[in-house]
Amino acid sequence: MTAPQTGPLQDRLEAQFAFLNEADRLKSVLRATTLCDGSRVENSGEHSWHLALYAVVLADHAGPDVNINRVIRMLLIHDLVEIDVGDVPIHSANGQAHASGDTLAAEARAAERIFGLLPSDLGGDLHVLWQEFEAAQSADAIFAKSLDRVQPVLANLMSGGGTWKTYDVTAAQLETRVGSKIARGAPRLWDWVRARAAPFFAH
Amino acid sequence: MTAPQTGPLQDRLEAQFAFLNEADRLKSVLRATTLCDGSRVENSGEHSWHLALYAVVLADHAGPDVNINRVIRMLLIHDLVEIDVGDVPIHSANGQAHASGDTLAAEARAAERIFGLLPSDLGGDLHVLWQEFEAAQSADAIFAKSLDRVQPVLANLMSGGGTWKTYDVTAAQLETRVGSKIARGAPRLWDWVRARAAPFFAH
Repeated sequence: MTAPQTGPLQDRLEAQFAFLNEADRLKSVLRATTLCDGSRVENSGEHSWHLALYAVVLADHAGPDVNINRVIRMLLIHDLVEIDVGDVPIHSANGQAHASGDTLAAEARAAERIFGLLPSDLGGDLHVLWQEFEAAQSADAIFAKSLDRVQPVLANLMSGGGTWKTYDVTAAQLETRVGSKIARGAPRLWDWVRARAAPFFAH
Repeated sequence: MTAPQTGPLQDRLEAQFAFLNEADRLKSVLRATTLCDGSRVENSGEHSWHLALYAVVLADHAGPDVNINRVIRMLLIHDLVEIDVGDVPIHSANGQAHASGDTLAAEARAAERIFGLLPSDLGGDLHVLWQEFEAAQSADAIFAKSLDRVQPVLANLMSGGGTWKTYDVTAAQLETRVGSKIARGAPRLWDWVRARAAPFFAH
């Protein structure tokens, strides 16, 4: 074994691994949603994996303008800012104030820092991709956001109510906070999921 | 809210979500490798996310024949068979017997069952992609395998030795079990990593 060499390739790898090692911390960011078996809450790293798999499996629900490979990349990086800011559960009081300037500014600073660890070409590309996801205006971002909203619904269905019980969510709140976002990118998906969620809100 | 409708779309979604819900169990499969901060062992779900992110960030180490989007998909599904079979740590005695017929047959049965939950077109595609990864002969699979070997090395570097200490690994064993596999798909990556691993084996 030899001592580390130096040079542009080495500097680049140093930056790439600084980012990948920092990303590891997303595995320690906890969400409100539990695993499907209810055994523990999910972390944002494994959530990001599950969502990317959702994109692979539910690609037939994406519109013709959606580039599913870009969606997968978006979903792989979409939560990295939580390393600095934490996860804000959508049904919590903070979740309902999520569009506040403070949270958005903190997330923007986190993105600057975390993507800034990478070589500038690569970091710039991923930073722009994250901004596109956040803006939720492009076809890719709208579909990615649909999947990000539908996965916790499935976890709640599987675990017997999950965060709907924790936060005492009503059918109308589910429709506004979740359903409308899913329906925007994947309407038939929301039809299917809504029908299965209905019994949880039938009281 | 309305009652579930029935029809081909509904049957297909039923199968897609049966698979996605089953995949959730990968978050409960534990590996020998710890997180970078050493706080706990990693699970195979978050490991799969981290690897897909490795592919995004280290794509410039892939050869010209590599389709990085296929590599990302491969990495997202590569460990699903562990839901039935569990993770076999590479430096463990079982890891060294990993190519045994028993393990391979169990993994093949797991793939059959898990990908079989999906609609047949989609399940067939992912099953074949998993088989390509396992065979480690195509350019995409060779690069994916390199990343699968390099990520635990970084975790060990960050956590102060990790599974190298647990299993009393020698420099020669690291070279055979890990280095040769990384070098096959990403030789300059192995040069960089090997130089940083050297101090851990200098006794």
